Amino acid sequence: MSLTPRLLNLNLFIYPGGHHEAAWRYHESAPDRLLDLTYYQELARRAEAAKFDAIFLADGPSLPDNIRYASRFRLEPFTWLSGLAAATERIGLIATASTTYLEPYNLARLFASLDHLSRGRAGWNIVTTGAPQAARNFGLDEHPPHAERYARAREYLDVVTKLWDSWEDDALLIDQGGGVFADTERIHPVDHSGRLLRVQGPLNIPRSPQGRPVYVQAGSSQDGRSFAARYAEAVFTAHQTTGNAREFYSDIKARVKAEGRDPDQLKVLPGISPFIGSTEAEARRLHDEFNELTQPEYSLRQLRQMLGVDLSGHDLDAPFPRDLVPADGEREVNSRFQVVLDIVDRERPTIRELLHRLAGARGHWVTVGTPEQIADRIEEWFVGGAADGFNVMPPYLTGGFDTFVEHVVPILRARGLFRTEYTGTTLRDHFGLPRPTSQYGPKALV
Amino acid sequence: MSLTPRLLNLNLFIYPGGHHEAAWRYHESAPDRLLDLTYYQELARRAEAAKFDAIFLADGPSLPDNIRYASRFRLEPFTWLSGLAAATERIGLIATASTTYLEPYNLARLFASLDHLSRGRAGWNIVTTGAPQAARNFGLDEHPPHAERYARAREYLDVVTKLWDSWEDDALLIDQGGGVFADTERIHPVDHSGRLLRVQGPLNIPRSPQGRPVYVQAGSSQDGRSFAARYAEAVFTAHQTTGNAREFYSDIKARVKAEGRDPDQLKVLPGISPFIGSTEAEARRLHDEFNELTQPEYSLRQLRQMLGVDLSGHDLDAPFPRDLVPADGEREVNSRFQVVLDIVDRERPTIRELLHRLAGARGHWVTVGTPEQIADRIEEWFVGGAADGFNVMPPYLTGGFDTFVEHVVPILRARGLFRTEYTGTTLRDHFGLPRPTSQYGPKALV
Repeated sequence: MSLTPRLLNLNLFIYPGGHHEAAWRYHESAPDRLLDLTYYQELARRAEAAKFDAIFLADGPSLPDNIRYASRFRLEPFTWLSGLAAATERIGLIATASTTYLEPYNLARLFASLDHLSRGRAGWNIVTTGAPQAARNFGLDEHPPHAERYARAREYLDVVTKLWDSWEDDALLIDQGGGVFADTERIHPVDHSGRLLRVQGPLNIPRSPQGRPVYVQAGSSQDGRSFAARYAEAVFTAHQTTGNAREFYSDIKARVKAEGRDPDQLKVLPGISPFIGSTEAEARRLHDEFNELTQPEYSLRQLRQMLGVDLSGHDLDAPFPRDLVPADGEREVNSRFQVVLDIVDRERPTIRELLHRLAGARGHWVTVGTPEQIADRIEEWFVGGAADGFNVMPPYLTGGFDTFVEHVVPILRARGLFRTEYTGTTLRDHFGLPRPTSQYGPKALV
Repeated sequence: MSLTPRLLNLNLFIYPGGHHEAAWRYHESAPDRLLDLTYYQELARRAEAAKFDAIFLADGPSLPDNIRYASRFRLEPFTWLSGLAAATERIGLIATASTTYLEPYNLARLFASLDHLSRGRAGWNIVTTGAPQAARNFGLDEHPPHAERYARAREYLDVVTKLWDSWEDDALLIDQGGGVFADTERIHPVDHSGRLLRVQGPLNIPRSPQGRPVYVQAGSSQDGRSFAARYAEAVFTAHQTTGNAREFYSDIKARVKAEGRDPDQLKVLPGISPFIGSTEAEARRLHDEFNELTQPEYSLRQLRQMLGVDLSGHDLDAPFPRDLVPADGEREVNSRFQVVLDIVDRERPTIRELLHRLAGARGHWVTVGTPEQIADRIEEWFVGGAADGFNVMPPYLTGGFDTFVEHVVPILRARGLFRTEYTGTTLRDHFGLPRPTSQYGPKALV
């Protein structure tokens, strides 16, 4: 057992404008700066000053069909995080990238480069891409079904891990006098020829500071959980109640153990979107103000995407018609589908109430209160076996994050729950994860 | 005709360590910094201080088979240039990317993002990938033949141009009061369904400052020339003599005109790798010093790649055996093959002399002399109808570039051949190229 106290891991999850769907309409937001790198650099520097573990960027290779009502374009994570790497020194940089729509050799190069240029701060949020419209941007008629995407993801992980291992750490000799730049005995072809992928390798970039990016995973379906148990070093997950979060936490840690891995080597990080006020009433007023900025046209489309039910034309103040939700196989394996149904079953909301409930963070935990109350809830989840830390999803930027840093973080620190200084330089250091040795290295053969 | 004087365009082409194959062995090089972003940021800042047009990065999605003897790993251009964008304000950023091995939707996003985060400084060096071993990193048995790669490249250019045009410039409304973030009437599906590619679109990123990256092209084969005439706004090309360069220049400008385009809208930029000394003798000594650091094992492999002939075991001081060069169809369409044969026919070198000739810049123009002499030759090519500017390929970094900036650039400036200050902010501004309108925009319909 470790002698150092267990500390929260906190990421800043950046969405252009913020996570609330109406963030860009809020008077304190800066929607004219959403494509300005310096805006995100300022945010990243503040997160680093607050000693956050990482910046987290979502992604998907298609345009969401609701761009009319919300700032839902996609910052390309590799370019954007490279620009943030150049403005920071310590904070981790987690890029979402798809095993379905990016070639493994290209993905391996992008992450190796991000890890080099950031000196060991890259993390990979591994997704198989949920949005079916992506398929038609890549010459496919149909988005591959969930199970097929996960089958490819497993093989893909084996391939890119081999690519990142293909240069042993000491392959780079740089012997100027002897004229040997790299020891080719320590650079290995990958020679992968599997059911779905064929990649010869080796990678054309020397092994990076962390060996590989930190493996993060963000689906909580059954397939997603098995996958995470085997590969992930951090899991980003959506829960609305401590009970559900605790259940997930126990399940995923047990699965990790069953894979023969140390459960401490997988960090469980639920999303949290906090509305903060100096009094509870003030926090509620802020939350109400955001609700009033929402647009039913947008919110109903979002709901249709999550549940497969189109409620346009319905009376928004009538009870949510639970019976209209289709029992659709593909949707039921999607973990967010279940999160929304749980809200419906627990709270029996009107349609409008449900739309407001989901407007903050697309099914992630939205919590409204004073800094003390927010800190209490974070502590409850953290010590109560529901979380190792959080992906912080500010409802609006930069203000929603500034308030969290200025008012909640000091309380967490005073309680000894969050670091006051970085103790290492890489994302693996921040997460307390070991640096993997190359599977081709001499140590790996012992 | 323009009233402003015609000025040189100068790019800094960065190769890790420098362009000479033995650069990393030179005592003034810093081979331990070749994966250090700050090293390249320092270079980019110096190039910007010298008012260069752009930084240029080569690329290929495979490991060159000669990594034992030279620093020939590959910096991934999008991540690396994003890191340079963050450290500079004005200089252009040209990334090499392959139409054969990167999905068009992914490439379009990477460039749109690089152009946004650099505020309009992205350029795309369009290649079809020459190295056959790349195929096996992407599940293919064989590298597609030259003509097939160019057929795909043409369709690919149409697709990505549509993607970059898919958001009209004024699609981003950001009407906070009215609740309209983007005008979806001005965001267009691409609906491309061609012989080789199917992409629906639209892009998931608003139109970037330059509309599209500047289109650069780097192959001088017949297919390459036709392609450049139709699409390119700058051409990077290899010539050993003013005569050959002039012939290429006239040919490509005539082809551009035949396509109905303004010949001034395609900049011809040959490579130049200068060895500079305060006297001619000193410059020659420097060049000799580099030749002595070359390793025949490496140089012979390079030659085999260019000509398809393996001369290991031959007497290096015997005349180059011209008869052994195979008349190989695929190689003959490669323009570099012809450049090397021209050297052989013109200079009748020994094998060693030819190896030294190619060690500097893989067939690009290596020129040895005083700053005055180098400036004279640049001027001769520029005013003599052989070049609109140059891709400067320093034999070693950073010293080989520093000498050029400190001693050659001031002469060019004194002669009125190179800018003293940037007059614009984008790469299109530097190159004097117009910003394209969207093919979907109202103006395009007039």
